[in-house]
Amino acid sequence: MTTLTVDLQPAGRRVEVQPGTNLLTAAQRAGVEIVASCGGVGICSTCKIRIIHGQVTNPTIDEEMELGSEVLNDGYRLACQTIPLENVRIEVPPESLVASQKLQVEGQEGVLQLDPVVVPVDLTLSPPTLEDLRSDLTRVDQALAELGHPPLRSGAELQGKLAQYLRDHHWQARIAIRPSEGGSDLVSILPKGARLVGLAMDIGSTKVALFLLDLETGALLAQTGLMNPQISYGEDVVSRIGYAERGPAERRLLQTLLVEVINKGLAEFLQQEELLPDQVVEITAVGNTAIHHLFTSLPVKPLGEAPYTPVVDRALWFPAAELGIRAAPGAFIYLPPNIAGYVGADHVSALIATRSYIDPRRTSLLVDIGTNTEISLIHQERVLSCSCASGPAFEGAHIHDGMRAAPGAVDKVSITADNVRVSTIDNQQAVGICGSGILNIVAGFLDARVINERGVLNLKDKRVRQVDGKSEFVLVPGNESGTGRDIVVTRRDVNEIQLAKGAIRSGLDILLKEAGIQPDQVDDYIIAGAFGTHLDLESALRVGMFPCEDLQRFHQVGNAAGVGARQLLLSHAARKTAESMTGKVEYIELTTYPGFHEVYVECMYFGDC
Amino acid sequence: MTTLTVDLQPAGRRVEVQPGTNLLTAAQRAGVEIVASCGGVGICSTCKIRIIHGQVTNPTIDEEMELGSEVLNDGYRLACQTIPLENVRIEVPPESLVASQKLQVEGQEGVLQLDPVVVPVDLTLSPPTLEDLRSDLTRVDQALAELGHPPLRSGAELQGKLAQYLRDHHWQARIAIRPSEGGSDLVSILPKGARLVGLAMDIGSTKVALFLLDLETGALLAQTGLMNPQISYGEDVVSRIGYAERGPAERRLLQTLLVEVINKGLAEFLQQEELLPDQVVEITAVGNTAIHHLFTSLPVKPLGEAPYTPVVDRALWFPAAELGIRAAPGAFIYLPPNIAGYVGADHVSALIATRSYIDPRRTSLLVDIGTNTEISLIHQERVLSCSCASGPAFEGAHIHDGMRAAPGAVDKVSITADNVRVSTIDNQQAVGICGSGILNIVAGFLDARVINERGVLNLKDKRVRQVDGKSEFVLVPGNESGTGRDIVVTRRDVNEIQLAKGAIRSGLDILLKEAGIQPDQVDDYIIAGAFGTHLDLESALRVGMFPCEDLQRFHQVGNAAGVGARQLLLSHAARKTAESMTGKVEYIELTTYPGFHEVYVECMYFGDC
Repeated sequence: MTTLTVDLQPAGRRVEVQPGTNLLTAAQRAGVEIVASCGGVGICSTCKIRIIHGQVTNPTIDEEMELGSEVLNDGYRLACQTIPLENVRIEVPPESLVASQKLQVEGQEGVLQLDPVVVPVDLTLSPPTLEDLRSDLTRVDQALAELGHPPLRSGAELQGKLAQYLRDHHWQARIAIRPSEGGSDLVSILPKGARLVGLAMDIGSTKVALFLLDLETGALLAQTGLMNPQISYGEDVVSRIGYAERGPAERRLLQTLLVEVINKGLAEFLQQEELLPDQVVEITAVGNTAIHHLFTSLPVKPLGEAPYTPVVDRALWFPAAELGIRAAPGAFIYLPPNIAGYVGADHVSALIATRSYIDPRRTSLLVDIGTNTEISLIHQERVLSCSCASGPAFEGAHIHDGMRAAPGAVDKVSITADNVRVSTIDNQQAVGICGSGILNIVAGFLDARVINERGVLNLKDKRVRQVDGKSEFVLVPGNESGTGRDIVVTRRDVNEIQLAKGAIRSGLDILLKEAGIQPDQVDDYIIAGAFGTHLDLESALRVGMFPCEDLQRFHQVGNAAGVGARQLLLSHAARKTAESMTGKVEYIELTTYPGFHEVYVECMYFGDC
Repeated sequence: MTTLTVDLQPAGRRVEVQPGTNLLTAAQRAGVEIVASCGGVGICSTCKIRIIHGQVTNPTIDEEMELGSEVLNDGYRLACQTIPLENVRIEVPPESLVASQKLQVEGQEGVLQLDPVVVPVDLTLSPPTLEDLRSDLTRVDQALAELGHPPLRSGAELQGKLAQYLRDHHWQARIAIRPSEGGSDLVSILPKGARLVGLAMDIGSTKVALFLLDLETGALLAQTGLMNPQISYGEDVVSRIGYAERGPAERRLLQTLLVEVINKGLAEFLQQEELLPDQVVEITAVGNTAIHHLFTSLPVKPLGEAPYTPVVDRALWFPAAELGIRAAPGAFIYLPPNIAGYVGADHVSALIATRSYIDPRRTSLLVDIGTNTEISLIHQERVLSCSCASGPAFEGAHIHDGMRAAPGAVDKVSITADNVRVSTIDNQQAVGICGSGILNIVAGFLDARVINERGVLNLKDKRVRQVDGKSEFVLVPGNESGTGRDIVVTRRDVNEIQLAKGAIRSGLDILLKEAGIQPDQVDDYIIAGAFGTHLDLESALRVGMFPCEDLQRFHQVGNAAGVGARQLLLSHAARKTAESMTGKVEYIELTTYPGFHEVYVECMYFGDC
């Protein structure tokens, strides 16, 4: 059987595929990263591409539903649904590409307590003589004892390497050890004075934030944000769980892809800082429960079916080599506990970070916004947590012209009764609307009375039109847009925001109710997460996502989970705190909480701040 | 370049080799195990083979020295010195083969204390519900807590497998755990009620004794003795150290060969007992320091050069998978401490075994006879140890017609002034003399006055002849032997025995001197080791290897090291005792002990019990 050529533009990549291969798979093989929010099953429109040349299969019903006949007539198709019938050339529009997306890696720093679990020991030993017949490792153990450390207890291979190194280097070396009651684990064998560094990771569904830290000074040496390559196998974790459950090869693939990206990022750090992998002696990673399980090869099926319990919820600490991470031979990776199936280690990490910059005696609400939004209320020694299914609307998904926060995305608007002005990322021609943009638009609609408190579009507004019986607002006409097509906001888009903000607000209200306090008793509202940083607070308050409190009480702290990951890397005490949370946090399962449904329905309405 | 064919008889194996490859290497590649005591450098005659057909290189000076012109003329050659010049056919005589050798695996049992480090836990858990959202592993931890065990702390992979297993098996499983203060390590996941077994090994230079034990009852389920395949790379450890030092590939080869044999032996045990590798949850191994280091891939160079210190002398305990042993995923291997470069973990193990059948308050001497003979004197809370270079004479090496204890080996003689009667192993025609045979012959020579107390052969005896100015005793004439050649005992053979017994006796005397006691103050002489079992005690006393004490005081206990390995497998307390020995044992380095040389020279003379 002959293969077919798929030519991907504007990337200029070509790939040979077997007949029957869909264009999403072809693009993945060519290394062109196309967003596939739904995991490639045709129920989102994020993998939209255009056929330039060549015959392909006819549009499916899903494509008709998602794209509409007009867009299909323009040559647009869903890559996951389209199979080439001969050699083809396709165009991947910018909104379908993941590569240029903005990434949020920084987080507001708190006070870091320096107390790492791995420490350096500089050895200068005397060689054996007929009068001193101690074994090589006894020499090492006695040097360790003089510094108050217990004897080594590693495997033979590493101890043998240490002996060889000492004999080859005039009985001098710097070793990295992990002392504990049972003995000192040998982590790495290095030249005298070599720097010890650690890697902290915040692994999100979309992005992976990597931080390289000096373990002796606590200094942040480098940071980067990389795409989570699992996104090509489902944008949301539910889709990825579905993919992983197809078989062991698929589960391994998701794990391996992630580890490869981490290894690549780490290797770049090391090259840039002139360090060796053996100098990376400790690693921490945080992520939501599904990412945590996918990353550590734990079964994910229990997370995809009721009652959605995690396989492991306590802290994990084991050799990084088990996951294939290229660091020092004895380096371990630490993952803090998960609280529940949908309140993960990343939220625990954010709580750790929060503790370092908010007095734990104050009443505070931590809201970590994402596809799932985790909320914790810290009030009088109690920590109440819940998870809200806020959905991907804030990330531009499930929105008619939604896109990720990439160049050309509308991120801010000004709407009056007869005028609309839009601003876009990088000031490029508008190609779609990103998450913060849609929130800002809905707030603007409320102010300009384009919609009412139920979210119904005002048909009397001349910018509102009816298409196939559904109303939509023309934000950017086709002649002004970068795509040549109208950029619109539909009734359904507004509804998506209602669902999303209603999910968050109802979770927040339930926690307050459970604690028996009013919104004004909360001293600090801490808004974390990448979307939380870009969030226009006034819009969020306008739509009723948060209670109408003074803006001074709101703190947008950025990637708090990343800050927590760094603290967990540098501080033994921070780990103890994280581990004590599993027992301390009261997890509120909203779906079974009495009266939740009523609260949720009420929260769907827009507020009037 | 074309290859040459080497045809090995009577094995009937053929192998293709590059020109320039010697016949020892060719035989090794063909899987024909030829003894090469010196490591293939031409200074022993153990790799003797006969050329049947085909042209080979001319004899070397080493071959002239080792075999003599008569034997060379019969077509015999040293395989390590002979390179084929065309396709050849060779005969490997039985005395050069290692395969049929008798092996000693049993040892006298003491009282075994049952207190293993790995224990079974039978789990029956309740599945998650909306009212019980505990994670899978929290369920396990809480079940462990009810039994007084700390929570699991293994890597993610094994914990994930446990969760999957529980979910696939109605939330029931038997797990093997290794509880300690820091947590319970997960060792294996098994069906409910599955038996837990352990493997104990005594790895000798020549043989590997394997024992399979039930960890819950302490019962010995199976035992076997296998050849240590490293023997093809040097019969004594010094030769193997030399081979290992050629490069990392050689070192790895010696380690891998050994592990393969162990895996094969273990697999046979498992098949026979209908067990799975996952049921093998703990392993112990003992061996001399060089074997210990070669087995665990520790550098061996320090053991081959002054001052002969080990790289590691304390106990090692690490994942068996690090060595490639196929057992349960979390199984560890334990190796007790070495006392010094030439007093190894096997001797510590023998001391452990001794303690279980001799009251430690009695004064006892443990003599573990081998190429190196380790001796310990236990007297009034003190343990004094030394190592004697007794050499391989007792194993039939360095003896003109010496051979291993294989069929056809002379193992006992009766010599009078005018008569010689020999008995052989398996009553086959005599082909050579084994270690216990040569000792018995020398004792017989003393009684029959064939030799004097200095070991000089009586030239007046008509069975003694002079060859090239050297005297030798014709034990079996060529017309009665299985080889067609005379089997003789030379002056040099007698001298080898003098050197060997002198080495042992001088070590023994120095220990007694150091302790300030006389031989009759020793309550028990414990003779251990494979050779020690076969040893004819009367002959040993006759030649002066041991003091002339009542035979009742001597106990031939067999493989005490193997018994110790089993105790270390079953008993945590035995390990503690072994570990306390490193600090307690007083190691006496004979070569630097004042007056040692004089004692040694005196001990070379034969005694007159």
